[in-house]
Amino acid sequence: MLFSPLVDELVESLRCLPGVGQKTAQRMAFHLLEKGRSGGERLADALAGAMTGVRRCETCQNFSDTPTCGLCQDPERNTGLVCVVESPSDLLAIEQAGDYRGSYFVLMGHLSPIDGVGPADIGIDLLLKRVRQEGVSELILATNPTVEGEATAHYIADRLADPVGGRQVLITRLAHGIPVGGELGYVDGFTLTHAFRGRKPLAE
Amino acid sequence: MLFSPLVDELVESLRCLPGVGQKTAQRMAFHLLEKGRSGGERLADALAGAMTGVRRCETCQNFSDTPTCGLCQDPERNTGLVCVVESPSDLLAIEQAGDYRGSYFVLMGHLSPIDGVGPADIGIDLLLKRVRQEGVSELILATNPTVEGEATAHYIADRLADPVGGRQVLITRLAHGIPVGGELGYVDGFTLTHAFRGRKPLAE
Repeated sequence: MLFSPLVDELVESLRCLPGVGQKTAQRMAFHLLEKGRSGGERLADALAGAMTGVRRCETCQNFSDTPTCGLCQDPERNTGLVCVVESPSDLLAIEQAGDYRGSYFVLMGHLSPIDGVGPADIGIDLLLKRVRQEGVSELILATNPTVEGEATAHYIADRLADPVGGRQVLITRLAHGIPVGGELGYVDGFTLTHAFRGRKPLAE
Repeated sequence: MLFSPLVDELVESLRCLPGVGQKTAQRMAFHLLEKGRSGGERLADALAGAMTGVRRCETCQNFSDTPTCGLCQDPERNTGLVCVVESPSDLLAIEQAGDYRGSYFVLMGHLSPIDGVGPADIGIDLLLKRVRQEGVSELILATNPTVEGEATAHYIADRLADPVGGRQVLITRLAHGIPVGGELGYVDGFTLTHAFRGRKPLAE
């Protein structure tokens, strides 16, 4: 661009956002400059604050402003029940469903030897330490139903196969089945097979 | 969200970007926090700089860091030729084509009585003053080929219908025709009609 180094730098910086290329970055920059200066200033402050202030919770690895996050500090949460998810957005989806009242552990990824991601990189040692020390009774493995997510779940289950501190930790996995509100005709065969095997009496 | 006010504020602020809703804002925030902290800090600085530092050029109304923009200061540009565009992205497209060496005037919009946008709001008075005072010989009306763009072009042409300072300013409009590299079968009838009427001898 020719007319303004400040605008050039803004367009270039916006490209660090996922899914934003040159044209979209231009459109965003011009929109902010034309109609959204106050929004742009607010975003600048929010970014500066979050990039320096957000750390990882020492207990669950989720993003947090404090050494221990709000969820881990909440006394109403059942700390004997730990749900293991791959990312903060998975945690958010479960929280928005509103039914789960246990605690979490956020892996921030999944095992992926081809990318050099091993158990230490996603904090599995921290998780196992927590299970051993804090009397966790059930571990819900809610990693994604993908090859990597299943492998990560199996790896964690294997590491906890032996009794921990003299007692066996219950390890569970989320149920597969047809999504609520879905149309049966569009559900894939594997999911339907799982749904048949997991069928329940109507009265339950 | 429950776990971090800083993350909440970041997600909320990202929604000021055009085309970014709740889910996309979440994805962007998590991406920056997980993998792009340095990019996020750079973006924060660029936003803060641009939101306070970018003004409008006093001559052509385009975005600029200085009272007069780089294009208007360029002595190699023909100031007797002024191309009128609706937005900075239109100007960029023309600059990237690389053939035009005149100067510009950026309306930052078009006439739209239904939205309360009149001639004063898009700087037409400033444009007319420039045409009268600076010996402009040709005004190229490159507003968009939409109803509003055509209306804006006709309004400007009407205001300059009488001779300015004893001489007639030449007023032109970009040619309609088939796009280079397009397929004839997909070109609409109006464009084809324009292309036929504007046909030229092969030798030219």
